[in-house]
Amino acid sequence: MLTDAQHQEIAAARAAEARTRRPTVPALEALLFQPVPVLDHGFLRVIDYMGDDAAIVQAARVSYGAGTKATNEDRGLIRYLMRHRHSTPFEMCEIKYHVKLPIFVARQWIRHRTANVNEYSARYSILDREFYVPAPEHLAAQSASNRQGRGAVLEGAEAAEVLDLLRQDAARNYDHYAAMLNEDAEGNPVDPARQGLARELARMNLTLNTYTQWYWKTDLHNLLGFLSLRADAHAQYEIRVYAEAMLETVRAWVPHAFEAFRDYRMGAVTLSAQMLAVVRRMLAGEAVPAAGSGLSKREWRELMAMLGCDESGSALPGGASPGAESAGAR
Amino acid sequence: MLTDAQHQEIAAARAAEARTRRPTVPALEALLFQPVPVLDHGFLRVIDYMGDDAAIVQAARVSYGAGTKATNEDRGLIRYLMRHRHSTPFEMCEIKYHVKLPIFVARQWIRHRTANVNEYSARYSILDREFYVPAPEHLAAQSASNRQGRGAVLEGAEAAEVLDLLRQDAARNYDHYAAMLNEDAEGNPVDPARQGLARELARMNLTLNTYTQWYWKTDLHNLLGFLSLRADAHAQYEIRVYAEAMLETVRAWVPHAFEAFRDYRMGAVTLSAQMLAVVRRMLAGEAVPAAGSGLSKREWRELMAMLGCDESGSALPGGASPGAESAGAR
Amino acid sequence: MLTDAQHQEIAAARAAEARTRRPTVPALEALLFQPVPVLDHGFLRVIDYMGDDAAIVQAARVSYGAGTKATNEDRGLIRYLMRHRHSTPFEMCEIKYHVKLPIFVARQWIRHRTANVNEYSARYSILDREFYVPAPEHLAAQSASNRQGRGAVLEGAEAAEVLDLLRQDAARNYDHYAAMLNEDAEGNPVDPARQGLARELARMNLTLNTYTQWYWKTDLHNLLGFLSLRADAHAQYEIRVYAEAMLETVRAWVPHAFEAFRDYRMGAVTLSAQMLAVVRRMLAGEAVPAAGSGLSKREWRELMAMLGCDESGSALPGGASPGAESAGAR
Amino acid sequence: MLTDAQHQEIAAARAAEARTRRPTVPALEALLFQPVPVLDHGFLRVIDYMGDDAAIVQAARVSYGAGTKATNEDRGLIRYLMRHRHSTPFEMCEIKYHVKLPIFVARQWIRHRTANVNEYSARYSILDREFYVPAPEHLAAQSASNRQGRGAVLEGAEAAEVLDLLRQDAARNYDHYAAMLNEDAEGNPVDPARQGLARELARMNLTLNTYTQWYWKTDLHNLLGFLSLRADAHAQYEIRVYAEAMLETVRAWVPHAFEAFRDYRMGAVTLSAQMLAVVRRMLAGEAVPAAGSGLSKREWRELMAMLGCDESGSALPGGASPGAESAGAR
Repeated sequence: MLTDAQHQEIAAARAAEARTRRPTVPALEALLFQPVPVLDHGFLRVIDYMGDDAAIVQAARVSYGAGTKATNEDRGLIRYLMRHRHSTPFEMCEIKYHVKLPIFVARQWIRHRTANVNEYSARYSILDREFYVPAPEHLAAQSASNRQGRGAVLEGAEAAEVLDLLRQDAARNYDHYAAMLNEDAEGNPVDPARQGLARELARMNLTLNTYTQWYWKTDLHNLLGFLSLRADAHAQYEIRVYAEAMLETVRAWVPHAFEAFRDYRMGAVTLSAQMLAVVRRMLAGEAVPAAGSGLSKREWRELMAMLGCDESGSALPGGASPGAESAGAR
Repeated sequence: MLTDAQHQEIAAARAAEARTRRPTVPALEALLFQPVPVLDHGFLRVIDYMGDDAAIVQAARVSYGAGTKATNEDRGLIRYLMRHRHSTPFEMCEIKYHVKLPIFVARQWIRHRTANVNEYSARYSILDREFYVPAPEHLAAQSASNRQGRGAVLEGAEAAEVLDLLRQDAARNYDHYAAMLNEDAEGNPVDPARQGLARELARMNLTLNTYTQWYWKTDLHNLLGFLSLRADAHAQYEIRVYAEAMLETVRAWVPHAFEAFRDYRMGAVTLSAQMLAVVRRMLAGEAVPAAGSGLSKREWRELMAMLGCDESGSALPGGASPGAESAGAR
Repeated sequence: MLTDAQHQEIAAARAAEARTRRPTVPALEALLFQPVPVLDHGFLRVIDYMGDDAAIVQAARVSYGAGTKATNEDRGLIRYLMRHRHSTPFEMCEIKYHVKLPIFVARQWIRHRTANVNEYSARYSILDREFYVPAPEHLAAQSASNRQGRGAVLEGAEAAEVLDLLRQDAARNYDHYAAMLNEDAEGNPVDPARQGLARELARMNLTLNTYTQWYWKTDLHNLLGFLSLRADAHAQYEIRVYAEAMLETVRAWVPHAFEAFRDYRMGAVTLSAQMLAVVRRMLAGEAVPAAGSGLSKREWRELMAMLGCDESGSALPGGASPGAESAGAR
Repeated sequence: MLTDAQHQEIAAARAAEARTRRPTVPALEALLFQPVPVLDHGFLRVIDYMGDDAAIVQAARVSYGAGTKATNEDRGLIRYLMRHRHSTPFEMCEIKYHVKLPIFVARQWIRHRTANVNEYSARYSILDREFYVPAPEHLAAQSASNRQGRGAVLEGAEAAEVLDLLRQDAARNYDHYAAMLNEDAEGNPVDPARQGLARELARMNLTLNTYTQWYWKTDLHNLLGFLSLRADAHAQYEIRVYAEAMLETVRAWVPHAFEAFRDYRMGAVTLSAQMLAVVRRMLAGEAVPAAGSGLSKREWRELMAMLGCDESGSALPGGASPGAESAGAR
């Protein structure tokens, strides 16, 4: 994952300290620069940050003026802002990560446009010989019911063959990439009789599970938007593990904002106008049949799962509903 | 609002037609260029557009591939996209408005950053002598309960005085602006003995209810984000009327997207993790007291209003709940 | 590149016409929907557009008011706007492309964030068996002098071996991808005894020269920013050919803006404060030595090339300078 | 400008220090929180920052890889990045300001969309009784030659009248605003018989020179874009003074980036393709007449001013050209 030289560089960076007048968060300082391992060769580490829970409150108070002083504690104001989607104060905090991740994950991630990115460039430099191969327990079959989902884990010979193919193809393609480049570590030709293919061309032979890395910087509002999609149960496992590692950094950094996000975004559900009408009728004691609900079958199932009811609309005992885990999922 | 020359220009533009291979929406073509009056001197008109409901579907199908052909009708797919917040296909439609609006409304509006804007510049040109004065029925007192809200309508002498002040101050300040400029309609000095103040300085004497105008262009996704905030009951009346006029243009332009937006965004409600837990307990037959709900008083009131219940948690008869009008409000 | 069914769909779309009140550009209508071949299996086609040269002028005139009527022709105003980097009026035009391109090109392209994108998703669907293999004349060696550049074309046995590796590795990896998926064209298992790997996982075995496709929509200002970087001599050949195809669509669409872009952006050069000082001294008749110029060696060489001088600062005869081709390059 | 309580708050914030592992810039720490007076009642102060010159280099090195280690000093790399408009590494630094500014200046400023803003809201709170009135030496007449520019300073009676009007109108309108609100400092009615106009309405009576304030946060790349337009000689004086105060904070924060910005952006000039052709002919010894240059009269004048030549194309003695001050102006 990291070379010895890199580990020493990180240790040196962690040992150095300076005095600052800026808002400082000791719990995040403790994590600073430290790589959190993700997947088989990836990592995520916080490189820098700006602001804290108090910076959110400070910005909200300039917007809403003296009035917000009545809200006499920061936690309450942050929860109010989150609940009512007053998003601009959350933009006043900024964080920068260094991430090592497979290219196919990077391709999903980069779709979040409101961020600053510097990626390792294979036009200029040579990528490391590292590729993601799923652990056997994550080698999932295609879901039969859900086009973008995963089904049961592959087993036996099929699993073994798939893992072999992934490993062999990535390794062979990397080796051919290196051979086409014809460069040693100092940039000199390995075989002086060959010219060496341009890096910007040779890279096309690499597989999508090759690792890349980047610096990625965003504000807290956009980070929470990223996390609400990517730390969600419907996100692909390979990006979700990065999002979950980031969630822990948010918890250390801005604990009030984190808690409000969990309550009002991650754990929240949205009811359509038609769903709300069904809930009102149920609360008024009516036995609403799926057929007359105005909802599609799929929406009906989703609603009943949210409400902890079985498909006939009866509350399941103990609150342990079959849909409990999907509350808030998107 | 518009000069005779402008009315003639609009009539000429509406009379001209061309042939195109692009997706075309007859219902929106019928509205094209036609100013919709808003407030006392403002208007809104559609100047151009790109795409239609089918363009949303087309983009979704390139993303989700052949699979989406199973979703055998466009309306269903658009509703699915809206419900699951797959926002990028809605970005494939674009619309451009010409708007005349008071400066204090423009200042709220411009906070929506993902749009293209060309505003009439008072550095270069002289603003018209037009200012917004509320109709008496919109002359609201400050809300006692809600810091950003309006209370009852002002009455009697106080109302009359306020209207007089607004009218007189705007008119006097405009007249002084014109006097400081010392320019006639051809740009020649009115009083040759005076130099005339620079336009970029003289404008600072104008009041915030002076009308300005701009071209404003955005994609459908960002437009719906704008409308979900500004066509909402909590938006200031003076911007809400513009948003409502825009909603009608969306209805004509992309009827399926409009309907999905109404059901899944405007008419939808979001329940926090704690609110959802309360609803589940109520549906299981429990009489949940506000005190033990885990909700703040304000959240409890909001939840009961959403659910059509009184503050003790009992369903109100007839579904005609006190909170009905606030469903979907933010 | 395109299936017969797709060709028929395009022909049908091109045959259909409607009447519109919107600004219409016959020269661009003539190109609409028609795929322009790019690279070995890629293409680019215009799907929709909004606005024209007159729309730029219209927006500028609302900004700069009556004053701009003095600029009595559109071409002059557009050139003025381009020259003085008044960019907002160019944002009032919008265009949408459908592009088929290799993944490694898509990864460069997506770095331009101010655009709307819907990409074919390999989570949901199966990619086509198409990959980019350079034509022999584009199989360049790594530049010795320029880390990101290309040197001479590979020759003989080395070229043949590289092409073989690229072809074989892409084909083998695709075939393994298909085998791991275990799906036929109808989505049924090829081998009923196997489960089939999830699409979102299997795709990681593909090489970076596999073709993907997307809808990409942006405004004219951001498009020109893209083209100034990607239609430039320093851009990688494989993205430059797309940019050059787009330039031709811009020429058809907004001829005045295109011409101004060519003169004031593509063909323009920027002189630093220090470079400008050198030029002034040279024009005053001074023989400025590189050493005393305040420029680095590299900047000196760049400046002399721009100016059509040799490295001693003497004008080259006939204006045919060695650096002529790099004017405007970045 | 600031109340005593605010001055004490700032002194307390400046006195507090913490230890951090983050990159820290002592020269900017020294300025932190300290208000820099701008115009008659405005100010600008740095509230927080992230990154330094080394953070730009760090991001560039992840992009351009080991290769950039050859560039063995940070200053050279930063200059290279600025010269070649590699903008993304500059996005890795972030800064947050607290600004008090007249509303008409805020309206120009907010057009820069790539920033995070929280403005004092006159919907929620009551604005201070402060308005900008130009110092006599900035009370400029309208430029006769340049529609957006300023001419000579107003003099004598006209100046006195203008200043009186600006002062009286702003003060009267503010007093009427306060009277319509009918609120004392505690929010209680001044006259219990009146209801008080809603704040969101009363504000429309204020003039555009009333002061507002905001928190404004952006990255270094976008900040430099702002400064290249607003610290320029063509910017309106009242925003330029803010930009100049910001330039000083940039100089303290990232001295290498500042220097590169000054040389390659602020002090640089752009030559169109046609202008470059003229310069080449002049350097080859040709006496190029304006008429045969392919430039418009205005472009010819601009070029000659840039080059330190008179309008016939002859170099002016001593390098003290009439156009020297406009180099780099846009």
